[in-house]
Amino acid sequence: MTTNKLFALLLTGGALITGNAFAAAGAAVEQTFSTAEMRPSLTINKSPLKQYFSGGEVRLDPVYPASDAKTHSGAYVTFEPGARTNWHTHPAGQHIIVISGVGYTQTWQGERRTIKAGDVVWCPIGVKHWHGATEQHAMTHLVITGVDDQGKNVEWLEPVTDKQYTGK
Amino acid sequence: MTTNKLFALLLTGGALITGNAFAAAGAAVEQTFSTAEMRPSLTINKSPLKQYFSGGEVRLDPVYPASDAKTHSGAYVTFEPGARTNWHTHPAGQHIIVISGVGYTQTWQGERRTIKAGDVVWCPIGVKHWHGATEQHAMTHLVITGVDDQGKNVEWLEPVTDKQYTGK
Repeated sequence: MTTNKLFALLLTGGALITGNAFAAAGAAVEQTFSTAEMRPSLTINKSPLKQYFSGGEVRLDPVYPASDAKTHSGAYVTFEPGARTNWHTHPAGQHIIVISGVGYTQTWQGERRTIKAGDVVWCPIGVKHWHGATEQHAMTHLVITGVDDQGKNVEWLEPVTDKQYTGK
Repeated sequence: MTTNKLFALLLTGGALITGNAFAAAGAAVEQTFSTAEMRPSLTINKSPLKQYFSGGEVRLDPVYPASDAKTHSGAYVTFEPGARTNWHTHPAGQHIIVISGVGYTQTWQGERRTIKAGDVVWCPIGVKHWHGATEQHAMTHLVITGVDDQGKNVEWLEPVTDKQYTGK
C-alpha cells in the first residue's frame, strides 16, 4: 500500500454523519460533521509510514480528509522528544501550525529553526525540509497539506541524520 | 473597504520573517515563519466586519494568509456567549475545527447542531449556514477557508435572529 493510499484510507476510514438525508444520498448540500472519537489516531511507528520518520514515536491524529475541499487535508502530528520526519517536499505546499511543545524545522539550504506553540510555518512547493520535536520536548503541530492535481501531497526523501538533527 | 480587502490586509499586515535572503527577495524557495506576536488580534465589533456578526463580542486571530497556498487561509475565531455570524455561504467551502468551548452551527435547511472541542465541520461550497457560541459558553474554532478563482471566500447574508439562534 502506498503512503498516499494509506493516508487516504486513514482519513476517510471513520464514519461520518451528515446534516440530513441529502448528504447521505451523495449530494453535498449540507454540512458534514465528525467528532474526535470518529477519527482514530495512527501510531506511525506501527504503520508502513514508519520508514519516513526516525528518532522516536510519532502519532498522527486526522482532522479532515482531502476529499472535502479537494485542495488540502488537515491532521495533528505529535512527535515525542527526538522524533522527526525524513527530509521531504510537498508538491502543493504545507502550513505547519504549532499547537504545543517545542520543535525544530530546517530546509536543505537553511539553518535549523526552533518553533513553539503559536508559530506558523509555510513550506512552499518543492522546498526540501524536515520537522520534528526537540531533544528535550515533545511537539504537536496541525498540518494543512496541499494536494496537487495528481492527488499527491508529499515526496519522501532520506532520513535526517543525528548530526543534521542536532545541528552539530 | 470591502470585507475581503480588510481581511486580506489584516492577514498580510504583520511583518514576516523568512528563512534566508532568497525569500526576502521574493523567490519562494524557503520556509516563511510567523509568531503569534506578529499576527495582531482583530476585535470584530470594533471593525467594519461587525455588520456580519451579532449577539456579542467576536475576536479574530489570524493564522496564515491566503497568499501562501493561494487556495485557502487560516484564522482562529472566538465567540463570546451569545455571539454568532450572520447567515453566509463560502464560494470555496470552509473547514471548522473546534478548539475549545461549546458552539452551534446550522444550515438553512437543517437542524441547529451543538459542536464542541475536537469536532470538525465541513461547510460545502454555497451552503447557507451560520456558526457561533452557545448562550452559556464561549467557543473558539480554527477556520480553514477556501478562496475561489476571484479571490472571494465568503458571501455575507442576513443576521441570525434570536428566534433562529435559540432554536425556539
